[in-house]
Amino acid sequence: MKASIITIGDELMIGQVTDTNSAWIAQQLNKEGIWIRKRVAVGDDRDEIRKALDEESIASKIILITGGLGPTADDITKPLLCAYFGMKLVTNMEVLKYVQYLFEHIFKRPFTDINRKQAEVPDGCTVIHNARGTAPGMWFEKNEVIYVSMPGVPHEMKGMMTDLVLPMIRNKITSGIIRHKTLLTAGIGESALAEHIREWESSLPSHIKLAYLPNYGMVRLRITGTGSIEQALDGEMEEYFNKLVVLVQKWLVTAEDKTLVQVISKMLKDANKKLVTAESCTGGYISHLVTSEPGSSAIFTGAVVSYANSVKNDILHVDEQTLRQFGAVSEETVAEMVKGGVKELKSDYCIATSGIMGPDGGTPEKPVGTVWIAVGNEKRITAQKFNFRFDRARNIEMTAVQGLNLLRKYLLEEMGEGKMNR
Amino acid sequence: MKASIITIGDELMIGQVTDTNSAWIAQQLNKEGIWIRKRVAVGDDRDEIRKALDEESIASKIILITGGLGPTADDITKPLLCAYFGMKLVTNMEVLKYVQYLFEHIFKRPFTDINRKQAEVPDGCTVIHNARGTAPGMWFEKNEVIYVSMPGVPHEMKGMMTDLVLPMIRNKITSGIIRHKTLLTAGIGESALAEHIREWESSLPSHIKLAYLPNYGMVRLRITGTGSIEQALDGEMEEYFNKLVVLVQKWLVTAEDKTLVQVISKMLKDANKKLVTAESCTGGYISHLVTSEPGSSAIFTGAVVSYANSVKNDILHVDEQTLRQFGAVSEETVAEMVKGGVKELKSDYCIATSGIMGPDGGTPEKPVGTVWIAVGNEKRITAQKFNFRFDRARNIEMTAVQGLNLLRKYLLEEMGEGKMNR
Repeated sequence: MKASIITIGDELMIGQVTDTNSAWIAQQLNKEGIWIRKRVAVGDDRDEIRKALDEESIASKIILITGGLGPTADDITKPLLCAYFGMKLVTNMEVLKYVQYLFEHIFKRPFTDINRKQAEVPDGCTVIHNARGTAPGMWFEKNEVIYVSMPGVPHEMKGMMTDLVLPMIRNKITSGIIRHKTLLTAGIGESALAEHIREWESSLPSHIKLAYLPNYGMVRLRITGTGSIEQALDGEMEEYFNKLVVLVQKWLVTAEDKTLVQVISKMLKDANKKLVTAESCTGGYISHLVTSEPGSSAIFTGAVVSYANSVKNDILHVDEQTLRQFGAVSEETVAEMVKGGVKELKSDYCIATSGIMGPDGGTPEKPVGTVWIAVGNEKRITAQKFNFRFDRARNIEMTAVQGLNLLRKYLLEEMGEGKMNR
Repeated sequence: MKASIITIGDELMIGQVTDTNSAWIAQQLNKEGIWIRKRVAVGDDRDEIRKALDEESIASKIILITGGLGPTADDITKPLLCAYFGMKLVTNMEVLKYVQYLFEHIFKRPFTDINRKQAEVPDGCTVIHNARGTAPGMWFEKNEVIYVSMPGVPHEMKGMMTDLVLPMIRNKITSGIIRHKTLLTAGIGESALAEHIREWESSLPSHIKLAYLPNYGMVRLRITGTGSIEQALDGEMEEYFNKLVVLVQKWLVTAEDKTLVQVISKMLKDANKKLVTAESCTGGYISHLVTSEPGSSAIFTGAVVSYANSVKNDILHVDEQTLRQFGAVSEETVAEMVKGGVKELKSDYCIATSGIMGPDGGTPEKPVGTVWIAVGNEKRITAQKFNFRFDRARNIEMTAVQGLNLLRKYLLEEMGEGKMNR
């Protein structure tokens, strides 16, 4: 079963917004055994939208369309779809009542003629309720192809997909089985890894594919298998995957489809320990990554972002003499930040960062990208210097990922020595 | 001048990564007066890639291709392009020397046969140097269409585009003029705004288009004009834009293509004042947003993420009695967080947040999405309660944006009363 995603909006053509919807939709369809053939983005242009619909309907059985459903004049998707399927726009009373209710009771804003247009839908489509916004979704079928039009606002689209569109698709189709298994490695480059597992890779049967997904100094490996008998495919996948796990053991972060933060959170939770961060150059980004995980309060106490040296000194009690002698970007400073963080925020472990993220602030001795990271507590501290390059955003992300990975290795050592559960 | 972007990789088809490249490329081309007709993403599938190349070359003069250039077996773009243009792969000695140098001196990893393959390029293409990685870019021309193949790793692609591809494109083409003007509003919904400016919108000539870009409780309005005489277009754009600015004055955040953080940073910098944050539910995200801006140390002292109540009490000196009586998510608590933040981190202003981000932690009195935000200092504090809904990530983002906007309004009041420059 093949599907296409068509994303509509001039804002995509000038790069004013990043399309996060397509990745999410692909993930959801994939779990249902539906493979995305193609993702297409076009502007608010009638001809281009029509052409995309024509082209995608040749090879795909499901076409998911997002965007262009707003009440304003630059959103042209609804009338276009109406004409495309030879229908006419009619006011749907249920949608009208719902939108009116939203404006009167939730938004507490006047209900205008423009809002009334939200309730107009092509007369031959199945209306899909939008529990999180005003623009309804629309489901069309023509020549055995399903077309679903949804709003582009991510949380509206996601709610609609989860509550209604995916169940409706499940109801319509029965397709082959698809399985993914993923592991995460750190400390080895993509090509060295490829070399290392070359023999294993060439032993894979044609219905199991391997992909390398490098990301900020780590490489994720994913095998994808397709088949028709669930049990047989699962067994086969398991076998190849287990062999791979053994091969990459030395660099393995996790053999599950988990993030580094999730791996660390579980280690801390199992040991009933808490983490804090003392961040200079990462400006709270590590804290943000950790607290983005639901339930993070069980393992995270808090953070101090010590952007100014006065905060390093006042709150984290980094010695003024240390700052003067070694500078803010030094092993000595991050080590004291770790100690101060654990003590002042009353925690078990701390990640501390200090570095020069750019574009300004570099010196010949400490160029942009120079970073010191320390992890640990009063009893034991591991510190490491990194030399990243390039842009500020990437340097911040690299520092966060390396800091988290340094903590992961530190925790592994603690566990090995039985210290964590004491 | 029309262009297409083709993104290649199975990881895009299963949604394992979000495509941030396309938006960035679109922005860059747009500045050169090149309009993106279509963005296409396909998997590592020879037929689909070939079909995409065929289709896009009909209507686009420039086709930018990213991804699929890695050294591993799942990357098939290079041999495919080679065959597509009827060329053969040859080893490029300059690339070979460069890749060898990288492995020996920078990565300090053995140079393998797989790495050697990076230096193979189709014999009829122009090789584009990759200053940030091992896979070279390739420039092809056929039937007056330009095809550029670049790696998918964002910073490698960006470096290559900026240093070489954009100058080479500029050298090849002369096209019409395109101009964008953007303003940001807050406190008014998309449809109410549309209603408010309807008359102005209908007065726009056909070569000036308006777009609404709603984002986390704010709406960005963008007008895009096309023309052939620079001065005439600029004058006309100015005229329509100025009228729009007057119309939306009440909700205007900025009449420039700036973010809310950039607007606040400028206000603080001009007044020589500093900001700190005291974040509970946002977990450091506001601090991250502020410090993502280059040069933020001039206006930002630091942050305390008080995830645990003990940190609110120990570091920010929120009264235990306040926490017991009113709870962590209360006006009283965020007001004390502001005072503690300003005092302990020695700053002029503080943003404090406390709320329930979900999915767990809600109660009937304080459901998921309940947030208190306060801004100010010991002398004057503004606090506001918000009721967001939906998912954790969105609640965190909404809280951050609303907190920053609350501060912006507070600073405007301060300036009005001449307090900021005292």
